[in-house]
Amino acid sequence: MFEKEYDVIVVGGGHAGAEAVAAAANMGSKTLLVTMNLQTIGQMSCNPAMGGIAKGQIVREIDALGGYSGIVTDRSAIQFKMLNKSKGPAMWSPRAQNDRLRFAEEWRLLLEQTPNVDFYQEMVKGLLVKNGKVTGVRTSLGIDINAKSVVLTNGTFLNGLIHIGEKQFGGGRAGEKAATGITEQLTDFGFDSGRMKTGTPPRVDGRSLDYSAMIVQPGDENPEKFSYLDTPLLKEQRDCFMTHTSAEVHDLLREGFDRSPMFNGRIKSIGPRYCPSIEDKINRFADKDSHQIFVEPEGWHTVEVYVNGFSTSLPEDVQYKALRSVKGFEKVKFFRPGYAIEYDYFPPTQLRHTLETKLIENLYFAGQINGTTGYEEAASQGLMAGINAHLKNNGKEAFVLRRDEAYIGVLIDDLITKGTEEPYRMFTSRAEYRTLLRQDNADLRLTPKSFELGLASEERLRRMEEKERKSTSFIEFFKKTSFNPDQLNPILESLDSAPVKQADKMVKVFSRPKVTMDHMLQLEGVADFVAEHELDREVLEQTEIQVKYSGYIEKEKNNADKLQRLENIKIPADFDYSKLKSLSFEAREKLQQIQPATISQASRISGVSPSDISVLLVYLGR
Amino acid sequence: MFEKEYDVIVVGGGHAGAEAVAAAANMGSKTLLVTMNLQTIGQMSCNPAMGGIAKGQIVREIDALGGYSGIVTDRSAIQFKMLNKSKGPAMWSPRAQNDRLRFAEEWRLLLEQTPNVDFYQEMVKGLLVKNGKVTGVRTSLGIDINAKSVVLTNGTFLNGLIHIGEKQFGGGRAGEKAATGITEQLTDFGFDSGRMKTGTPPRVDGRSLDYSAMIVQPGDENPEKFSYLDTPLLKEQRDCFMTHTSAEVHDLLREGFDRSPMFNGRIKSIGPRYCPSIEDKINRFADKDSHQIFVEPEGWHTVEVYVNGFSTSLPEDVQYKALRSVKGFEKVKFFRPGYAIEYDYFPPTQLRHTLETKLIENLYFAGQINGTTGYEEAASQGLMAGINAHLKNNGKEAFVLRRDEAYIGVLIDDLITKGTEEPYRMFTSRAEYRTLLRQDNADLRLTPKSFELGLASEERLRRMEEKERKSTSFIEFFKKTSFNPDQLNPILESLDSAPVKQADKMVKVFSRPKVTMDHMLQLEGVADFVAEHELDREVLEQTEIQVKYSGYIEKEKNNADKLQRLENIKIPADFDYSKLKSLSFEAREKLQQIQPATISQASRISGVSPSDISVLLVYLGR
Ligand SMILES: Cc1cc2nc3c(=O)[nH]c(=O)nc-3n(C[C@H](O)[C@H](O)[C@H](O)COP(=O)(O)OP(=O)(O)OC[C@H]3O[C@@H](n4cnc5c(N)ncnc54)[C@H](O)[C@@H]3O)c2cc1C
Ligand SMILES: Cc1cc2nc3c(=O)[nH]c(=O)nc-3n(C[C@H](O)[C@H](O)[C@H](O)COP(=O)(O)OP(=O)(O)OC[C@H]3O[C@@H](n4cnc5c(N)ncnc54)[C@H](O)[C@@H]3O)c2cc1C
Repeated sequence: MFEKEYDVIVVGGGHAGAEAVAAAANMGSKTLLVTMNLQTIGQMSCNPAMGGIAKGQIVREIDALGGYSGIVTDRSAIQFKMLNKSKGPAMWSPRAQNDRLRFAEEWRLLLEQTPNVDFYQEMVKGLLVKNGKVTGVRTSLGIDINAKSVVLTNGTFLNGLIHIGEKQFGGGRAGEKAATGITEQLTDFGFDSGRMKTGTPPRVDGRSLDYSAMIVQPGDENPEKFSYLDTPLLKEQRDCFMTHTSAEVHDLLREGFDRSPMFNGRIKSIGPRYCPSIEDKINRFADKDSHQIFVEPEGWHTVEVYVNGFSTSLPEDVQYKALRSVKGFEKVKFFRPGYAIEYDYFPPTQLRHTLETKLIENLYFAGQINGTTGYEEAASQGLMAGINAHLKNNGKEAFVLRRDEAYIGVLIDDLITKGTEEPYRMFTSRAEYRTLLRQDNADLRLTPKSFELGLASEERLRRMEEKERKSTSFIEFFKKTSFNPDQLNPILESLDSAPVKQADKMVKVFSRPKVTMDHMLQLEGVADFVAEHELDREVLEQTEIQVKYSGYIEKEKNNADKLQRLENIKIPADFDYSKLKSLSFEAREKLQQIQPATISQASRISGVSPSDISVLLVYLGR
Repeated sequence: MFEKEYDVIVVGGGHAGAEAVAAAANMGSKTLLVTMNLQTIGQMSCNPAMGGIAKGQIVREIDALGGYSGIVTDRSAIQFKMLNKSKGPAMWSPRAQNDRLRFAEEWRLLLEQTPNVDFYQEMVKGLLVKNGKVTGVRTSLGIDINAKSVVLTNGTFLNGLIHIGEKQFGGGRAGEKAATGITEQLTDFGFDSGRMKTGTPPRVDGRSLDYSAMIVQPGDENPEKFSYLDTPLLKEQRDCFMTHTSAEVHDLLREGFDRSPMFNGRIKSIGPRYCPSIEDKINRFADKDSHQIFVEPEGWHTVEVYVNGFSTSLPEDVQYKALRSVKGFEKVKFFRPGYAIEYDYFPPTQLRHTLETKLIENLYFAGQINGTTGYEEAASQGLMAGINAHLKNNGKEAFVLRRDEAYIGVLIDDLITKGTEEPYRMFTSRAEYRTLLRQDNADLRLTPKSFELGLASEERLRRMEEKERKSTSFIEFFKKTSFNPDQLNPILESLDSAPVKQADKMVKVFSRPKVTMDHMLQLEGVADFVAEHELDREVLEQTEIQVKYSGYIEKEKNNADKLQRLENIKIPADFDYSKLKSLSFEAREKLQQIQPATISQASRISGVSPSDISVLLVYLGR
């Protein structure tokens, strides 16, 4: 019924799966997507939003590499915000609200338009494995489909168990079946598996809300977008709203604590620390008697509304009573209650940097199955697994991003090196080099690499090169061109910045904290240069950041270079640490288990001390 | 969590449920839709098309009554055809191909915009019943929701069991869970239930088909539409295609017959006779070695394709091999195989004409649960159940359509009077008065009634009245205005119709079989009249039909009137037939069971003879 052998089979059409399919197919692999429901490809299980702090950077990186998440987001966005715009550009983070149905439909249509992609709707219930290598999958109908490699992206579906109050039932997501068979087979093969949990708030009827009692949260006045390609800019936007819980709401919620699966021991697995349920927040921050709630529309036309910040698995009557006490929600009607879900994951220390499993060759894991949470985290892993599956099948070198090259590099390195005991989510603080890993330069960082791999299109490379060329020449312009003090001083004065005495290069004043591109554009010649060279918003932004933050950027680059030297010291595969008695016991054990590929990776393992690293360096003859 | 008491709760958001919700809410009932997945409201389980022979008439009737199916169809259509245009207008049947995702989305958005509708996503697992009256539903979470009446529209979900070859598994539709609990509870209450089955073809990848080997099936050059309101007319359309099976294909299919759940006894329930599976067709028409296959796109943009005519539950490898031998399908790729599904239904003789159950007051059944098949049949029942639930709650008289008033009347009367042993589908031949029940006059027949009920809007009534007024005056024009023989004869000549000798009223020639409105428009004064009175396509069509078919129409009206006299003879409720010993034994038993409301209904029960009717008439003093 299928190709004799696919190059890559991707199991699951969530965010990870969809990106994996797109990457492998666009590189030329004959790819099959097997998923339980072809109508839920790219389905957003929880909030209808993409991006946000650190996550927005990841979406930009995916886009720069030629993935689809940015394009899909732009095509289905209903609101855009650049978060943290008041902070340094390392913190700027794009975020979009999306039309939930449109998002999934755009994903499906994009994949359909991608050559080399076949589709098949069914549940996979096991893998075909021969001599330690995966050779395909077996579906629940018992159909065997062969492939050179398989990417598992099962999300929250593996033995998914949904909890609401004291009730529990199987399911991969509200209204959808759980997936069975895979965990059992993999643990037979020797994999470790664990349980995690996550939760989602009630969905409510927007017609039952009193928005006049809430604070409106409009999108940016000049909305930007995610993709470096020609996706549409938002012309219209939908508003979000903000409201708050209160002491009364918290009291009402507490009434249900004895029936909470979180507190009565029914749910034992760990949830995402930074996406806590409302009961968790009340519990952990007992002194706060108000938490923010963001009221987000689910689409352009639907009345369904997402109650961000009110994730809960309390009994539905408790959810209801408490939410009714929130300002603006006095008459709320539920479309469905919130719930928590427990699911199987595989501790990601069982993976290589390529996301290939160590135990079974050509088998890759990506997304929530690796203990992460979030669409962006999932999507980026899918992309990397898809790329690496293709590369390995074609005898090419693995594609691994370093921690100073991308948030995606940080994410995967964290996962496979440190593992994760709780759902892993990206933060800017996880990145040592976050001044380098900005949302504005993801194309500069990654598009050339991806083009070389054969994934990013020529069009992408051309656009990125043009942006680079133009901003370089604009920076040169500021370095070479002098300002006129008479023209400049009134501007500086208005900024409460010391006046200049004599003419000097523009770059000098541009570096001052309060001076922005907008000010520079008021100086003679600058606007002309912009017009003459047709510099667009992206180039202006890039130039401004590179001029104003050059100090920080240089410093981080140097640090990264230093560490890079350690990165270059490879440790042979299957290195036997048990022989190195001078390592600490803990280090020996962890190193043996994780089998780091480089000294640098070894140094990031918790429990491996600098002196352990010295031992290793000596042993390796450095 | 909910209104203290709803007026109407509708269980299930398929075609029946969606119409039931719309009708009850639009009449003013506080209505709650409880359905397993809010993203599949109005989901088309099988072919992405609405209407067709007799079914198209039903959609027009639903629209004339103020239901939504016609509007949703127009908004999501990708192709339109008026079938049987070469036959008399009683046979003209509109049919549209639809964008499957768009169709469901339009349903959802329309319901969201309807006042009085609340939504809730969950499975209902039982009814609340007190003293023989329904008082609400209980969900799978154990939530009780109260209502004055409940409409069950569970479709194919009740204990749904999916079959593919020798494999079987629970499900309400591919990829969706079955619903449990309701059948068991209802049979405890004394309801009879049975099993039926239906099937669906494989979905395939349009990119893998060779359309050049097939026959293109474009839409109508001047596409019409379903709704009498201002819905969009198609400007662009998508083509369908036709191909054929062959002896070779049939041989390949036969190879799987021993593994067919239809032939090896695994499926015992009866499927729709007029929507047979391909294996059924081969079996029943063993002498035919070719069957038509219609290749229908699933939407504007998707590559998914529906293989109409190839419904099958043979093992997937057999489906695949055989389909690959069909012309144009040599390289076909499957999105998913075809399958059959068995589900519970309730023999509809357990219902009153209002679709209320006889056993439990205020409980209504509509759709596939009553043993019907097809979206249109389901939708129309939902509409009628919604209307009647509202009326009864408000102490108003029931709304029942007679067999000479609507296909919907025929449908429901057939169901509750005769029951059905196999999935019931509408045909023109089921209607004795099909010249009256045309697609063009559904508004004239039904909109005034519905307006009176408070369902059809004033706008609908106004449009219908204008159409009636204009066509009446146009008919008058033809009756009063004389033609000029010199002008007419060349036209008649070109039609091979006898020339006229002298001037006479236009209506005389218009009645001739070959003469159409287009010919009449060539006569002096006719086009002027059209322009002056701004007559649109609908008015021209209506006038033409009423002039040309007035003989047939009159005859059927007379017949209907005669029968109407019997219809007016009511039989008291709970009439005790066992006392009437002069009835035949069979008649006594059937009458006792079905409890017809009128003599006319009694006469339609199979096994009740004209002499039994005489006995009844005598007894009732007529
Ligand atoms: C209730 C809930 C609440 C959440 N809350 C948050 C939150 O607050 N914050 C946050 O950042 N993230 C949250 N998430 C997580 C977010 O949805 C996921 O991180 C993201 O969707 C993971 O993407 P994925 O591709 O790994 O898996 P998913 O999006 O879960 O997709 C998995 C896909 O695989 C398919 N599949 C699974 N098993 C099989 C099989 N055996 N055969 C065929 N197909 C299969 C499924 O049908 C599905 O299409 C939540 C998720 C859920 C369900
Ligand atoms: C495989 C298949 C093949 C078919 N083939 C044909 C064909 O060839 N020709 C044809 O004319 N028709 C065919 N049909 C039938 C057609 O789909 C139905 O006639 C039509 O959809 C019936 O509409 P309905 O509203 O009665 O039910 P459905 O469309 O089945 O909708 C039922 C709804 O109720 C919901 N639901 C069910 N139980 C519960 C519960 N307990 N609690 C909450 N919600 C519930 C479901 O989620 C669903 O939304 C086929 C159907 C299937 C599944």
